[in-house]
Amino acid sequence: MAKSRFEYVKQFERENFLLPQTYIVIRVDGKGFHKFSETYEFEKPNDARALAVMNKTARTMMLQFPDVLLAYGDSDEYSFLLRKDCDLFERREMKLVSTFASFMSVNYLMHWNDEFPNKPINSLRLPTFDARAVMYPNSDVVRDYFSWRQVDCHINNLYNTSFWGLIQKCALSPQDAENELKGTLAKDKNEILFSRCGINYNNEPEIYKKGTVLVREYENWTRGEAELSKLQKQRNEKMRKKAEIRQLHIDIINDDFWVQRPWLLT
Amino acid sequence: MAKSRFEYVKQFERENFLLPQTYIVIRVDGKGFHKFSETYEFEKPNDARALAVMNKTARTMMLQFPDVLLAYGDSDEYSFLLRKDCDLFERREMKLVSTFASFMSVNYLMHWNDEFPNKPINSLRLPTFDARAVMYPNSDVVRDYFSWRQVDCHINNLYNTSFWGLIQKCALSPQDAENELKGTLAKDKNEILFSRCGINYNNEPEIYKKGTVLVREYENWTRGEAELSKLQKQRNEKMRKKAEIRQLHIDIINDDFWVQRPWLLT
Amino acid sequence: MAKSRFEYVKQFERENFLLPQTYIVIRVDGKGFHKFSETYEFEKPNDARALAVMNKTARTMMLQFPDVLLAYGDSDEYSFLLRKDCDLFERREMKLVSTFASFMSVNYLMHWNDEFPNKPINSLRLPTFDARAVMYPNSDVVRDYFSWRQVDCHINNLYNTSFWGLIQKCALSPQDAENELKGTLAKDKNEILFSRCGINYNNEPEIYKKGTVLVREYENWTRGEAELSKLQKQRNEKMRKKAEIRQLHIDIINDDFWVQRPWLLT
Amino acid sequence: MAKSRFEYVKQFERENFLLPQTYIVIRVDGKGFHKFSETYEFEKPNDARALAVMNKTARTMMLQFPDVLLAYGDSDEYSFLLRKDCDLFERREMKLVSTFASFMSVNYLMHWNDEFPNKPINSLRLPTFDARAVMYPNSDVVRDYFSWRQVDCHINNLYNTSFWGLIQKCALSPQDAENELKGTLAKDKNEILFSRCGINYNNEPEIYKKGTVLVREYENWTRGEAELSKLQKQRNEKMRKKAEIRQLHIDIINDDFWVQRPWLLT
Repeated sequence: MAKSRFEYVKQFERENFLLPQTYIVIRVDGKGFHKFSETYEFEKPNDARALAVMNKTARTMMLQFPDVLLAYGDSDEYSFLLRKDCDLFERREMKLVSTFASFMSVNYLMHWNDEFPNKPINSLRLPTFDARAVMYPNSDVVRDYFSWRQVDCHINNLYNTSFWGLIQKCALSPQDAENELKGTLAKDKNEILFSRCGINYNNEPEIYKKGTVLVREYENWTRGEAELSKLQKQRNEKMRKKAEIRQLHIDIINDDFWVQRPWLLT
Repeated sequence: MAKSRFEYVKQFERENFLLPQTYIVIRVDGKGFHKFSETYEFEKPNDARALAVMNKTARTMMLQFPDVLLAYGDSDEYSFLLRKDCDLFERREMKLVSTFASFMSVNYLMHWNDEFPNKPINSLRLPTFDARAVMYPNSDVVRDYFSWRQVDCHINNLYNTSFWGLIQKCALSPQDAENELKGTLAKDKNEILFSRCGINYNNEPEIYKKGTVLVREYENWTRGEAELSKLQKQRNEKMRKKAEIRQLHIDIINDDFWVQRPWLLT
Repeated sequence: MAKSRFEYVKQFERENFLLPQTYIVIRVDGKGFHKFSETYEFEKPNDARALAVMNKTARTMMLQFPDVLLAYGDSDEYSFLLRKDCDLFERREMKLVSTFASFMSVNYLMHWNDEFPNKPINSLRLPTFDARAVMYPNSDVVRDYFSWRQVDCHINNLYNTSFWGLIQKCALSPQDAENELKGTLAKDKNEILFSRCGINYNNEPEIYKKGTVLVREYENWTRGEAELSKLQKQRNEKMRKKAEIRQLHIDIINDDFWVQRPWLLT
Repeated sequence: MAKSRFEYVKQFERENFLLPQTYIVIRVDGKGFHKFSETYEFEKPNDARALAVMNKTARTMMLQFPDVLLAYGDSDEYSFLLRKDCDLFERREMKLVSTFASFMSVNYLMHWNDEFPNKPINSLRLPTFDARAVMYPNSDVVRDYFSWRQVDCHINNLYNTSFWGLIQKCALSPQDAENELKGTLAKDKNEILFSRCGINYNNEPEIYKKGTVLVREYENWTRGEAELSKLQKQRNEKMRKKAEIRQLHIDIINDDFWVQRPWLLT
């Protein structure tokens, strides 16, 4: 097509190509979900249906983006791990984060009706997400990243369970509940929950305590992708697309999860 | 809250803060809209309802983001101009583009039903957008940016009108229509349209030829914001939020549009 | 030349192309010049010969880089203003800063002997510089940048003059001088200098109070470079290379300096 | 110190902090060394004294920057490998490259007189260098980087030896020599050298064929730095500073060099 004399403005565009051979984690985060959860009257401290919407959405994302090997989420956030050799959108940062935020939002909207058929989304309070991409250069720090998120899930859930326990079981005001918990350690919160609310935190559902792991499960995976022939790589690609995506609510801080799935970090 | 030993992974996060005192343009672009338009059977070469969805979506975005002074769109793309002093999300690039892509997508989905009540969106073909942010350091290059997009709209629309004219009015196959137009100049296409399809391009609707301009219209705007007191700035802020957003289908390459709206580029 | 299979490692290289049509300021800064000044026994608070080395070095840089329109320096730092349309090294950040730091260092070494013929540089204490490049999108902020540096020069010089005055004229220890000045305002320092050291700060040499300005002086400069023909641009280029570089020790915060030299900021 | 109202211009400064836990390679490259070598009449194809200046300069750099574990150079370039955990200048890109370019230049100037006592540097042709920093996320790609440079050294040296052989031994003009070599492969050049110039390339000095490796040699190095106590780390730090720096002219493409020095890539 003919080029106009205005074409030069493209020179102002900048691209950040994320470094090759690094793991990319894209984390999407709900915008204003505190108010969102109030508008749609989420149950406190956790709303099982809202989590189901998030988890279904993340699973759909994994079907749409076969480069995602693993996803971990809790509350209104999800982290997607892209394989190290991924070349999606040539690893362009803005393209990656804007696309993931866009897919997350519309998929969420589509899955909403499955779980909340009686609460249609109204246009003044829409589910929206921002996204960030982070490069991690080796497998150790990738594991530490996911440990960080799971510890964070635990810390938040213990606090929220205690906070709402005091309100719902002991009729404290939110202000009083907050004051009660100020400065308490994990063991104090466990004790408060047990003695004052009659809740044994250990018996709380794993999905609340551990968050949700979605992982591509390979059968017959073999090491040594580096030396694979082109044909084998295509076969692996296919395998990745077809791999079952499994939903788990388990510990991903210790070695077991990773040792059993060597394809995640090679 | 307690910090875990995994917290250090945050050190790998990077932010690109867009340079202060530059104009930011965020352009959102439909992903795979060629197939999208086939799935939902858009009329060719232009579908008035599909454009209405885009334009309503962009208007809603301007209500949601008062920093946007001007938006210009055609086909499946829209460019949003943020005012020079805008500090939205501290001008963080990933936050800006992921948020705009997210809002664009869900708003599009919400407005879809207004225009296509009989064609519900199916989850296998969702409307998604990517986004990019570009900094422009002065008003001349901002104007050239918008001229570039409007020229592009014109070039594409003239081609598409000719292409589909040949198919719809002269019963050419797509391949034959493409061959017919190969290497033609604008005046050739005008001639083909007129003599072979009976279409006078000049009489085509302005919305197709010029695209759509959405602009915040101020009354009583006064120059010299630089020296305004804090109070006056807050008043301006308020004014911006309340300003009528007008939809136009006019030339924005020549001076008139900009001269009449001095608040856009100061 | 034949390419090896290792060539791919170039894909890890990243370039930051500084935004077109912005003013670039490159500031070089002496590394460890506190110790450097002790090793070579600079006079305190200001050493006229050391400043002469800096100023000669900066002038040589301006001859080597005709894109530099203006340079301002004091103590062990210098700021170089590149013209807005400069395309030196395609505006690549690393290339710009590493080259300026390199030229600064070797030129300094070459000019050293002019001023300190009896103090040859020894290889254990070399004059080295780092450099940073900053983009400024408009002329107002460029002026504010240079105002910032000149104010900084003034603040430092007033402090140093007072500090060394107390030591040299009043025989205070460095620690006592520091305590004496703690929390004092500019007028207090002026008073201390006058009453205790017999120094009228106003009579101090301008080069110490104002720093050094090196500016390319054009004769017959005419506005409107934007619409110049190619031929005229080449003529301007030539003019720039031949323009006299003038050394001044004057105020660059107020309008006069800039109004008289309209070629600096257009 | 008092802050002026101009202080805000610092907000325009940007820093690129290179990603933690990646290997950083800083490559310095002589600026205009073709002309430089003519001015100072370097011997062709290789000048032993000029290489000695480069190698002494690089060694001095390694003494000044203990984070450099390995350096490789040939002709007018040198690559410095910084250890993975290096936090020099907080890994700020501009600071790293400008400082390395500065140190390289002044050290070169200082070492020049050792080798060229009769050819003092004149101020119209100074030795200057630019520098770039590249992040490499794992040890494989670091090795490939150094292989790339050593292959490049070999390719260039074979060409230059042939080119100057034809000129010096066969009295060809530079243009004829160039034509003679156009399109030739390595084995052709070997043959030309042998049959026409009487040069057996295999017998050429290793320093020309392999370039120069400077490596910090540790005695008693033990693995497992990750779990070292703070005290042990400080001991390692000390060991690094005291480690002998050895100069070699050997193959670094094959495994031997690296296997024997496990401290380089852990």
